[in-house]
Amino acid sequence: MSNNKKNKPNKAGFPPESAIYTGQSNLEESVVTIVQYNDVFYDEKILRGLECTPSTTDKVTWYDVRGLKNIPTIEHIGETFDVHPLAIEDVLNTTQRPKWEDYQNGIFVIIRALRCDQHTDEFIAEQVSFYLGKDILLTFQEDADDLFIAVRERLKRGQGKIRLKGVDFLMYALFDCIVDDYISVLDKLEYEIQAIETEILTNFTPSVRNRIYKQKRQLTEIRRYILPLKDVISRFSREEGEFVKHDSQVYIRDLYDHVVRVYETVENQRDMVNNLTDLFNSEETHQANHVVKVLTIVSAIFIPLTFIVGVYGTNFEFLPELHYKNAYFWMWAIMILLAGAQLVYFRWKKWL
Amino acid sequence: MSNNKKNKPNKAGFPPESAIYTGQSNLEESVVTIVQYNDVFYDEKILRGLECTPSTTDKVTWYDVRGLKNIPTIEHIGETFDVHPLAIEDVLNTTQRPKWEDYQNGIFVIIRALRCDQHTDEFIAEQVSFYLGKDILLTFQEDADDLFIAVRERLKRGQGKIRLKGVDFLMYALFDCIVDDYISVLDKLEYEIQAIETEILTNFTPSVRNRIYKQKRQLTEIRRYILPLKDVISRFSREEGEFVKHDSQVYIRDLYDHVVRVYETVENQRDMVNNLTDLFNSEETHQANHVVKVLTIVSAIFIPLTFIVGVYGTNFEFLPELHYKNAYFWMWAIMILLAGAQLVYFRWKKWL
Amino acid sequence: MSNNKKNKPNKAGFPPESAIYTGQSNLEESVVTIVQYNDVFYDEKILRGLECTPSTTDKVTWYDVRGLKNIPTIEHIGETFDVHPLAIEDVLNTTQRPKWEDYQNGIFVIIRALRCDQHTDEFIAEQVSFYLGKDILLTFQEDADDLFIAVRERLKRGQGKIRLKGVDFLMYALFDCIVDDYISVLDKLEYEIQAIETEILTNFTPSVRNRIYKQKRQLTEIRRYILPLKDVISRFSREEGEFVKHDSQVYIRDLYDHVVRVYETVENQRDMVNNLTDLFNSEETHQANHVVKVLTIVSAIFIPLTFIVGVYGTNFEFLPELHYKNAYFWMWAIMILLAGAQLVYFRWKKWL
Amino acid sequence: MSNNKKNKPNKAGFPPESAIYTGQSNLEESVVTIVQYNDVFYDEKILRGLECTPSTTDKVTWYDVRGLKNIPTIEHIGETFDVHPLAIEDVLNTTQRPKWEDYQNGIFVIIRALRCDQHTDEFIAEQVSFYLGKDILLTFQEDADDLFIAVRERLKRGQGKIRLKGVDFLMYALFDCIVDDYISVLDKLEYEIQAIETEILTNFTPSVRNRIYKQKRQLTEIRRYILPLKDVISRFSREEGEFVKHDSQVYIRDLYDHVVRVYETVENQRDMVNNLTDLFNSEETHQANHVVKVLTIVSAIFIPLTFIVGVYGTNFEFLPELHYKNAYFWMWAIMILLAGAQLVYFRWKKWL
Amino acid sequence: MSNNKKNKPNKAGFPPESAIYTGQSNLEESVVTIVQYNDVFYDEKILRGLECTPSTTDKVTWYDVRGLKNIPTIEHIGETFDVHPLAIEDVLNTTQRPKWEDYQNGIFVIIRALRCDQHTDEFIAEQVSFYLGKDILLTFQEDADDLFIAVRERLKRGQGKIRLKGVDFLMYALFDCIVDDYISVLDKLEYEIQAIETEILTNFTPSVRNRIYKQKRQLTEIRRYILPLKDVISRFSREEGEFVKHDSQVYIRDLYDHVVRVYETVENQRDMVNNLTDLFNSEETHQANHVVKVLTIVSAIFIPLTFIVGVYGTNFEFLPELHYKNAYFWMWAIMILLAGAQLVYFRWKKWL
Repeated sequence: MSNNKKNKPNKAGFPPESAIYTGQSNLEESVVTIVQYNDVFYDEKILRGLECTPSTTDKVTWYDVRGLKNIPTIEHIGETFDVHPLAIEDVLNTTQRPKWEDYQNGIFVIIRALRCDQHTDEFIAEQVSFYLGKDILLTFQEDADDLFIAVRERLKRGQGKIRLKGVDFLMYALFDCIVDDYISVLDKLEYEIQAIETEILTNFTPSVRNRIYKQKRQLTEIRRYILPLKDVISRFSREEGEFVKHDSQVYIRDLYDHVVRVYETVENQRDMVNNLTDLFNSEETHQANHVVKVLTIVSAIFIPLTFIVGVYGTNFEFLPELHYKNAYFWMWAIMILLAGAQLVYFRWKKWL
Repeated sequence: MSNNKKNKPNKAGFPPESAIYTGQSNLEESVVTIVQYNDVFYDEKILRGLECTPSTTDKVTWYDVRGLKNIPTIEHIGETFDVHPLAIEDVLNTTQRPKWEDYQNGIFVIIRALRCDQHTDEFIAEQVSFYLGKDILLTFQEDADDLFIAVRERLKRGQGKIRLKGVDFLMYALFDCIVDDYISVLDKLEYEIQAIETEILTNFTPSVRNRIYKQKRQLTEIRRYILPLKDVISRFSREEGEFVKHDSQVYIRDLYDHVVRVYETVENQRDMVNNLTDLFNSEETHQANHVVKVLTIVSAIFIPLTFIVGVYGTNFEFLPELHYKNAYFWMWAIMILLAGAQLVYFRWKKWL
Repeated sequence: MSNNKKNKPNKAGFPPESAIYTGQSNLEESVVTIVQYNDVFYDEKILRGLECTPSTTDKVTWYDVRGLKNIPTIEHIGETFDVHPLAIEDVLNTTQRPKWEDYQNGIFVIIRALRCDQHTDEFIAEQVSFYLGKDILLTFQEDADDLFIAVRERLKRGQGKIRLKGVDFLMYALFDCIVDDYISVLDKLEYEIQAIETEILTNFTPSVRNRIYKQKRQLTEIRRYILPLKDVISRFSREEGEFVKHDSQVYIRDLYDHVVRVYETVENQRDMVNNLTDLFNSEETHQANHVVKVLTIVSAIFIPLTFIVGVYGTNFEFLPELHYKNAYFWMWAIMILLAGAQLVYFRWKKWL
Repeated sequence: MSNNKKNKPNKAGFPPESAIYTGQSNLEESVVTIVQYNDVFYDEKILRGLECTPSTTDKVTWYDVRGLKNIPTIEHIGETFDVHPLAIEDVLNTTQRPKWEDYQNGIFVIIRALRCDQHTDEFIAEQVSFYLGKDILLTFQEDADDLFIAVRERLKRGQGKIRLKGVDFLMYALFDCIVDDYISVLDKLEYEIQAIETEILTNFTPSVRNRIYKQKRQLTEIRRYILPLKDVISRFSREEGEFVKHDSQVYIRDLYDHVVRVYETVENQRDMVNNLTDLFNSEETHQANHVVKVLTIVSAIFIPLTFIVGVYGTNFEFLPELHYKNAYFWMWAIMILLAGAQLVYFRWKKWL
Repeated sequence: MSNNKKNKPNKAGFPPESAIYTGQSNLEESVVTIVQYNDVFYDEKILRGLECTPSTTDKVTWYDVRGLKNIPTIEHIGETFDVHPLAIEDVLNTTQRPKWEDYQNGIFVIIRALRCDQHTDEFIAEQVSFYLGKDILLTFQEDADDLFIAVRERLKRGQGKIRLKGVDFLMYALFDCIVDDYISVLDKLEYEIQAIETEILTNFTPSVRNRIYKQKRQLTEIRRYILPLKDVISRFSREEGEFVKHDSQVYIRDLYDHVVRVYETVENQRDMVNNLTDLFNSEETHQANHVVKVLTIVSAIFIPLTFIVGVYGTNFEFLPELHYKNAYFWMWAIMILLAGAQLVYFRWKKWL
């Protein structure tokens, strides 16, 4: 489960537009990577201090901020590129829901990225904010792990057509990267679902219940992220104007198909987990019934026999059978017959 | 659960537009606070008697009525600022659902505020009415606790841009305050859900069922308030005209995002509570099955042994084994073997 | 439950537009009350025979028909005021769903009124039809109990603004009356839900199941009425033209808010009853588990002890313990120890 | 359940527009009844061979085909009145879903009629196709039972206004007939639901489960038919042009109200059956708990008593109580006391 | 279940538009069949190497590619007919969701075909892509089994009107073929559902649970394919322009009706499987209750009897009954009476 849900600093009481960081990044310092490129040029550097590189019309400029603790840096970048203060506030408040906001001089987008944690079995949800202006893209990642390393590699090597296209295509490529991460997380969940299924069908243990419950909780949480993400990308795919060019549309529609597939996969997995819950309950009931059957068979066989031997344990003065020569062996014969008849009956009832 | 649900005076039989108070405020007297401000001026006073302060075009005037028992005062304020009688009736009838009404000379809004009660574990739902006219805002709170104390503080100290903006911004700030209270209540519920989860997984007691049930009931009730609140704020965010200015829109859309987040949190928590119910039922079934297993194991081991000793308790004259030297010890040996075999079987079945 | 559901005469085979009464009114004769009023005039009389009072443009004329058995009377009224034969057929067929029909010269509305029955615990659903023409309102009630007595009182006493307004306001007032009755019925149901909740939590008896089931059935039925009623009143609130004047709109929108509140209350109560069902099932399971625990504890303690005393009841010739001096008391000591150990174990397991 | 679901001939592999009959009519021969009428004229005859009666503009011509095995006859009728080959294919393929198709020179409609089978308890679903052209109506029934006998009677006797109106009114009357049959089937189901309810509440037997299951299955199937039927009649009620005249609209809207009522009844009955399932499960659990209580009470009383008598059945040499004069009677007294105390306890626990 | 879900090569990290095959076809080589026809001409050949046959305006050209491993061939075909690189990428990535894409010079469609596997009981889902240009249709099948063999036969024999119509009609015929396969799969599932139902009602075994679970899983997966397929065909039925001619519309609308029927069948079967689950659970509970009843009856009869014989097994010196002449027979009489009374009671309770 995402670990950024507890102990969040409470913003209640502060006026709106206060720039306060509400998350729990594992990064002490913010790292700002500045990339500038066009079809023939590529430059990448780390921002030191507050001197920002201006955006130019012949190159795409991409500021990637990792870690949200250096509020002055972030505010400075915001001011340099004329970002609305409410947007900067939303960047820092890491409990935002994914959204798409049109401002005068740019588009502001918040989404949630999902990553598998290498160390634990769980996934981590991290808020990522985008600000798309003219020839400039600002991205804000919450955690230290760089989500966009693959895109930066492609840019550097000039792979694909990414260097030939504008800043809107860069934003599409970053979104695509994030949606691919969702698919990885869901593949891992599907693998776990199949493992649970196999375990229930072949080697049932009651503790599998906790694993099913964990799946449910994770899917509940992913669904909470994916629904607004779908809205955001749908909005992106319909955007066409100053900031998003017409010939990027076909790629963004493709991306939208991906996110719809992710959404349907989540719904499908929820269905599958519900089916598993039914199967688990059914199997547990079945096991419990089996225990009761064992009890019933043992009781039904031995309680009557104990009664019979009890009868001949009585101390009546006049109890004729006790004095017959082979009475003891007759008793055994009768008891074995009775028990055998019951076993036949239980097998006929398919209890054995 | 909200305590204003019982014993409400019945309005049936009275004609519409009758000003009758149907709530149960804990406040004996209505307190009317009048605030007037602009960017350079701030004045706050308590209304005595019926002499209202007129609204002026260069200042924002805010009447805040706390407690709804002084009907004449409320009716007088309504007449002073030309509020429709149906609106005044709705202010007093505290079982209204949240709604947005356009009148000739103002906008009338009813919403429900949620607060955690300090004394009990429960939350309190309170009706709050707003009447937004030209440069005038009337607010009506049902209970003694002042929901808007933080906003009044910010006004007094001139914090943020609230003093620079008009009466529509004030209304937005008050709404924001109320939505923040919803988030606090939901945070508390989420904390309780996590506590219940931990308790079920580590230290199961059947009484946790009542806590789950209470969560369900509270979420059912909150959902009943949040759905129409969402509609009201969506309506607010689309309003633009005489009473709500264009440049407040961006703030109100932000507020709408908050309330959508609150709504999704409620739905998410309902999902989580349903998952908890499943987990609880599964755990309780598991415990019950364990009890039955103990019964079955004890019975399966001792009922056959009791039968065996019963056999040698019979008083047959001719019972050869009784006279063998070590028969008693042989019997023990057989019984121990039998019990041991059963224990091995039960462990193999994973019942132990 | 409504008692007009059984043994309804079958209309199949008759052509459409046949005026056949399909209900089971408890009224032998139809009673037709004619009210005429304007701001200064009020007259009320019972129709005898077939001579109808004409409607006049300076007065509002209201025909209220109670009981639907006098088909000629009803057909005569229909012809006098030029009502479409299909409408008259629908008046008499009391299994209609609520609907709103625009005809050339009037508006025809069917809704269902709900009343608590004084004698039994149940509610009664009754079809009420309205025909709104120019300055004329016809209403048709199915049963003897007069639903509109409060409105007629207000008219007579000239209370509120009802006498100042037109026939559309009268129709609104009658609708308002019916919606108020829904609220009364739902208040009673909510009271019963709370009683059931208290009973489950403090004094559980399995028979409470039937009460929960009855609630479910009643809510299922009310929901069946309220959904189309909502549609009808929504249609009413959007109607503006020859028959419904503009300045009644604000009242009708208020009425629509009421009916939406009723609808949400029904949905909310369904949620609450479902929660109660879960609680009931959980409590019943809990009780059953307790019974099994008692059985297990008694068996686990006494079955081994019975085995021990069985051992010393055997008649082996060579059974050394039998001849020890204090063997009997040692046996008791061992048995008490064993039972005590089990009690400690069960308490540790929280079974006791 | 409908009996036309099994062993349907497989059409896969044949090209579209192949006229192949896929149903299982119980009629060996197709019977074609030709009716012609206007306000003063009525003629009815059975078609022999292939000589069709032409349609005339001053009379309404209605071909009713019963049984779909004479494919040449049906194709000949189709060609005579210029019906599209795809429509004829759909007439014969009796697994079509209800639909409304506009063709150049006519309207083609498929719906499903429901009838109660007189011999069994089940209902029969039968495909009925309509082709409405200018002054001509073709209807195709699958089975031998004539669904339209009542309408033909009315036509013959000139009852109602059916003879005065056009062919669109005839189609309306036939639809009305079919919707009335749905209501009859649902009335029968509702009667069965109430019978089941009574049986569960007063005279519970586990076999009632199969009856509930049968209801569920039947409602699932009816719902499958009613949903598209609703769409078809909604389409009919909005149709206005060459084939459907304006003044039939008011009747068709009335029909639409009927079908909506049927749909709501189905949904309502599904709700009721689900409630019944809950009630049944609850009752069965209750009965099972009762059985366990009996077991527990018997065991809890007699297992300790058996232990006590077992103690005095031991053969210890030194067992003082055995030699007391009234020890036997004291033992009885103690045992009766113990059993009595348990009975009191169980009654206090409400287990008895 | 579809076997193309596991071990899919991961595309993450590659730039978009990379042509990488992600499926697991059972075909080593791609087979490309080229068909050209018009009303009087038909030619079919297998593509060798890379020399493509050009499309001509007087003939329909259909390229059918089976197996997706020869990426150069597929890319070459794509380039020859000017297909967008993203479309070619989607052809190869066999985890696409069904979709409809309009490109400049053609329409690109992905759907999923379902086939029953002859060898196992399961169905196989296979991605099929279509590219419809001017007089040219490209189809890409994933597996070796030819889905379109029936259509090719019809083309060769000139059956139906398929040779008279254009390339859009060919695409419709292929779609129709695929939808027919869905119907076959669903017929098989329905057959299995009826088999399960019969088994539960007549010959219950707990293992039927796994069969129900398998049905659920299969329906979950089919639903995942059918929903977007419905969207695609709905889009197809609304398409009218350069690539799809007006007079094909009537056929495509018919196809849409088929796919809606398939969708409703899936929903219906889900309902039926849920009903079956309820029935199964109810039956299993019933069986478990029966086992408990047997235990209770055996215990209730024999435990008291064992107690009675235990009483007369005690060794009290003064136990009067032991010395009565017929005490032993009286004891038997009493015990038989007691057992008989219990049997009567249990029969009255309907436990026997």
